[in-house]
Amino acid sequence: MKLVTAVDTKGSFVGLITNDDSCVIPLKRSEEMLNGSSIIPNSMIDCIKQGKAFVEHVSKLAVIFMSHKELHIPLESVELLAPITKPEKNIFCIGKNYAEHAIEMGSAADIPEHVMVFTKAPTTVVGHNAEVLSHSEITDQLDYEGELAVVIGKQGRAISREEALDYVFGYTILNDITARDIQSKHKQFFLGKSLDTSCPIGPWIVHHSAIDNPNNLNIQTYVNGELRQNSNTSNFIFDIQEIISVLSKGMTLEPGDIIATGTPAGVGKGFKPPKYLKSGDIIKIDIEKIGSLQNKIK
Amino acid sequence: MKLVTAVDTKGSFVGLITNDDSCVIPLKRSEEMLNGSSIIPNSMIDCIKQGKAFVEHVSKLAVIFMSHKELHIPLESVELLAPITKPEKNIFCIGKNYAEHAIEMGSAADIPEHVMVFTKAPTTVVGHNAEVLSHSEITDQLDYEGELAVVIGKQGRAISREEALDYVFGYTILNDITARDIQSKHKQFFLGKSLDTSCPIGPWIVHHSAIDNPNNLNIQTYVNGELRQNSNTSNFIFDIQEIISVLSKGMTLEPGDIIATGTPAGVGKGFKPPKYLKSGDIIKIDIEKIGSLQNKIK
Repeated sequence: MKLVTAVDTKGSFVGLITNDDSCVIPLKRSEEMLNGSSIIPNSMIDCIKQGKAFVEHVSKLAVIFMSHKELHIPLESVELLAPITKPEKNIFCIGKNYAEHAIEMGSAADIPEHVMVFTKAPTTVVGHNAEVLSHSEITDQLDYEGELAVVIGKQGRAISREEALDYVFGYTILNDITARDIQSKHKQFFLGKSLDTSCPIGPWIVHHSAIDNPNNLNIQTYVNGELRQNSNTSNFIFDIQEIISVLSKGMTLEPGDIIATGTPAGVGKGFKPPKYLKSGDIIKIDIEKIGSLQNKIK
Repeated sequence: MKLVTAVDTKGSFVGLITNDDSCVIPLKRSEEMLNGSSIIPNSMIDCIKQGKAFVEHVSKLAVIFMSHKELHIPLESVELLAPITKPEKNIFCIGKNYAEHAIEMGSAADIPEHVMVFTKAPTTVVGHNAEVLSHSEITDQLDYEGELAVVIGKQGRAISREEALDYVFGYTILNDITARDIQSKHKQFFLGKSLDTSCPIGPWIVHHSAIDNPNNLNIQTYVNGELRQNSNTSNFIFDIQEIISVLSKGMTLEPGDIIATGTPAGVGKGFKPPKYLKSGDIIKIDIEKIGSLQNKIK
């Protein structure tokens, strides 16, 4: 099950992607059309907050909707927004969670012994195909970071490793755009990670039921078609169970929380000389079983 | 003008503190009682989003309400919540913004050249008199940090120093409770700063019109009556204008955003041996022209 937030001439809606990834079915509108009314919320975050009831409801509707071609809107006819357009808190981000990336950012001494967590402001979030501002007046070291992102499905604190995946609603792709000069100048990562439009997310959330093992997914990032990052989430230093367990030790996780799991080697800063982003560059991140997130630098 | 979020048997409300700080006037209920209807929103964040219209409206109402004693509820009869109970993003926090504090945390080399920014999750927020969890199962280095907090009143990006204070709605007191062991173990500050209940805020927001110069306010922190921090915001390394200007360079600030401006010398970690918080400790932070924020460790 792939879920999007999209907008067309009738407004924004939560939609279900058809099996061939070509169309979107607006859930609330379709249910209203077929049944006269709908209990589907208007926003993805409210859908996620409904928990299992939402997923079971949509699973039943999906069987019916897939055969009603009149409900299917071609993806070219809508604009995809970030699946969660306005997160209710900052995005949690795991730093240096692939050893090869930690090394390219410094040396083997930079491989963390403990989960490193920083955040990105909700004002950074944009969707698939959205333009990313170059912020050229304040940075000349804009960089990409392709990442698998976890969307939390239910509230919890002190979640054990064993239970951790029960708290996941689904998975998506996230580009942790970073201004390297601002990141290093201000010591703590936050400012260099929080420029407006620096967090493309999408194109959709894949429900966890479609992904057996999130700790074993191929991930690639291309800039203008050139392969820059090529790894697998099996290279995580801290797997998703560990991340959820550590984050929730003293802090309550909530439905709709987004966790970016870290980026593999191959970021712009890792090249000699560095390959930073410039106006017009197109960044595409592919993650196995999820899809492709693509954005252009304005 | 001092504004609170409070709760009594009739539910939660935005209230105005009477001139002698003894009572609270529920704004919406009082307007409804006297005028039959009210345009006051139910939550502080929605009030702040109304901007100048809200402040002008309440200023007019205040003149009338102050003389209607039947509208005044003694503060003892209500529970004060954090003025903004559920911020819409993480709290922005400025690290090491008093030189003496930077030195007590390490050495003069720790005095930052540039604004350092980290965040606290919205799940940390509690109000005046709320109990703060000791989290003794995961930390034995719980520490206090008395801070002046700025509440943003209107949206802006690339705000100049000259205009910065026009973007402030008001000021409040914030205790940036920190688990020092978790803070240092995980490198980036976020995790050690984001334990549930680790961000008492209050007791109220003082509208900016009541504070001529926020960069010149006495600030004291007491633990069980013992003076631990004693400084003045004139000792800021980066003043409030600078903080707003730097934060907003590439990141949009929004109404209801909260910025903790950093803590003076005298935190528990700064003593030899350190004086960390333990169950039953009472922390009181006084800031000139604002008031006192008090909390007890559970």
